[in-house]
Amino acid sequence: MFKIAVDAMGGDNAPQEVVAGIEQARDRMQDVEFVLFGQLDKVAPLVKDQTRITLVQADEVIEMAEEPVKSVRRKKQSSLVLAANAVKAGEADALFSAGNTGALLAAGIFIVGRIKGIDRPALMTVMPAFGGPRDNFVMMDMGANAENRPTHLYQYGILGSFYANNILGYDQPRVGLLNNGTEADKGDQVHKEAHELLQAGSDKELLNFIGNVEARDILQGPADVVIADGFSGNAALKAIEGTALTLLKLMKESIMSAGPLAKLGGALVKPALKNMQERLDYSKAGGAVVIGVKAPVVKAHGSSEAETIANAMGQIEAMLHADLITKVQAFVNEHADDLVARSDEKNAD
Amino acid sequence: MFKIAVDAMGGDNAPQEVVAGIEQARDRMQDVEFVLFGQLDKVAPLVKDQTRITLVQADEVIEMAEEPVKSVRRKKQSSLVLAANAVKAGEADALFSAGNTGALLAAGIFIVGRIKGIDRPALMTVMPAFGGPRDNFVMMDMGANAENRPTHLYQYGILGSFYANNILGYDQPRVGLLNNGTEADKGDQVHKEAHELLQAGSDKELLNFIGNVEARDILQGPADVVIADGFSGNAALKAIEGTALTLLKLMKESIMSAGPLAKLGGALVKPALKNMQERLDYSKAGGAVVIGVKAPVVKAHGSSEAETIANAMGQIEAMLHADLITKVQAFVNEHADDLVARSDEKNAD
Repeated sequence: MFKIAVDAMGGDNAPQEVVAGIEQARDRMQDVEFVLFGQLDKVAPLVKDQTRITLVQADEVIEMAEEPVKSVRRKKQSSLVLAANAVKAGEADALFSAGNTGALLAAGIFIVGRIKGIDRPALMTVMPAFGGPRDNFVMMDMGANAENRPTHLYQYGILGSFYANNILGYDQPRVGLLNNGTEADKGDQVHKEAHELLQAGSDKELLNFIGNVEARDILQGPADVVIADGFSGNAALKAIEGTALTLLKLMKESIMSAGPLAKLGGALVKPALKNMQERLDYSKAGGAVVIGVKAPVVKAHGSSEAETIANAMGQIEAMLHADLITKVQAFVNEHADDLVARSDEKNAD
Repeated sequence: MFKIAVDAMGGDNAPQEVVAGIEQARDRMQDVEFVLFGQLDKVAPLVKDQTRITLVQADEVIEMAEEPVKSVRRKKQSSLVLAANAVKAGEADALFSAGNTGALLAAGIFIVGRIKGIDRPALMTVMPAFGGPRDNFVMMDMGANAENRPTHLYQYGILGSFYANNILGYDQPRVGLLNNGTEADKGDQVHKEAHELLQAGSDKELLNFIGNVEARDILQGPADVVIADGFSGNAALKAIEGTALTLLKLMKESIMSAGPLAKLGGALVKPALKNMQERLDYSKAGGAVVIGVKAPVVKAHGSSEAETIANAMGQIEAMLHADLITKVQAFVNEHADDLVARSDEKNAD
């Protein structure tokens, strides 16, 4: 039986949608227990059936706009910190929140703790691939770090490959480095060196590096694992989200402001477009993963409804079933020398 | 009478579409002469009317895939290098190419030359704003530099403001810094320091800085001038382009693979969507500007057809009419101390 610690107070629709999502997930999965941390006067009345659900009182709540690191340090009785402590103490196997992303990152890194040998945990997300041989790809770092060194990017190649292989079932995941051109010598010093490290790792068959990929192409699925520094990964992901939102809105406006024939046309194309929109709305498929820490730590979008939260539980269950963290730790232990390939970088930490 | 030096051999459709575009532009503008550099056995037969068009033989061509700096250094008889030399010698007022972007950048920086006081010329593009008070915004650096220092970003704020004010006619253009969050302390060291410099410049009323903007929002027009380092600016722009292309393709596929009613619907919404697609296809409105050099230097997309090339000529004409370079140079001379705000950075150059 796996146990997932849930921050029941995190998210725009908490605790209602969180509780509803957990109950959906509980009904779908037979081998998972849920520990919900929150203000029980609000949470308890929402739970319809307590089967495999435990409630734990948390006096405090970390709000969406609070400064992440400070709030995790100060609010020891918050639902998030108590849930993270339960994972640290071995009382739960994984951590989930739909609340403050930075606070969850801080709780993941400072409370759950880094995997030994991984320098900088990252935020990873599963994206839809609209071309290529596979339906999805993973991308990291989406912004856990404002700056990354080449070794970090190399380690992300390893972490992402483990996820894509074990959770998405992709054989020999193709790892691409997000860069400002496809040639090997492109980019700034960090990306040039990251390219070298990834290539060296690929030569040793530690991962399957296919070279640089460009932001223009990634949605077409040229790689199963797209590695980016946190700053430009964040810029690329947000540009994709913003463009998709803007286009869908524009499309509706264009149709509605045109004549009655266009409106009729809009009604006729609606089902076809809905299918497309659902694939684009990748955040509904689950959550972003804080990868590189000692347990599955997953963040759903703040606006998540029950269905998305239940999907994130499925994602966590898959990580637990695959025993992903143990596998990553074993790999990192075995290849410690390869993962910190340059002693000068190690010293610079 | 202004004179524009044109690389007639640059671009996927050169020299046909280049010549056709120049003739369109010539017919539209009464005060501009065009000097076309190219292989005259190919170029000359295409020119229907030589009014205000001069042809100059260039034995060599820089191909799209050639290494930019090397090719500019070695191919002294190429159409691009000869056109750039004409600008340097004062025989022409501006430089245009639809060919190799890197080579045009190199020709702009090394042959036309930097404006004194501007450390790193940038690639700037005019984008559509789908919200906010204005129809467009300018964004730079789109990738002329793989790395930027804070001073560069500050200088881009000045350069972009001059363009938005003089060419787009925006009063007190709102300058935003592309960053991974809107709070002032967001980002890596480069972006934190750039934020400080831009704020200090704004306090001195040298520009109108509105703070950080996120990639998710920029298409909604929160700023008239979006400043980015070349690496993440390139990632954001390409992510926007890739997402727009992917979505439009998906939309067509979704409609065509659905039933006959959806196909009928698709036919009915087509005019409304075409309008949207045209606004999105911002590259048709003109070209990317190499900004920070001593003359207007403009790059149209490699796949440009005549109409786009004619539009780029209009853009160059506007820059010449506004006497943009002279104004920028005068401003930089007057505020030299402010533009290199930190002596340690100056020394690091």
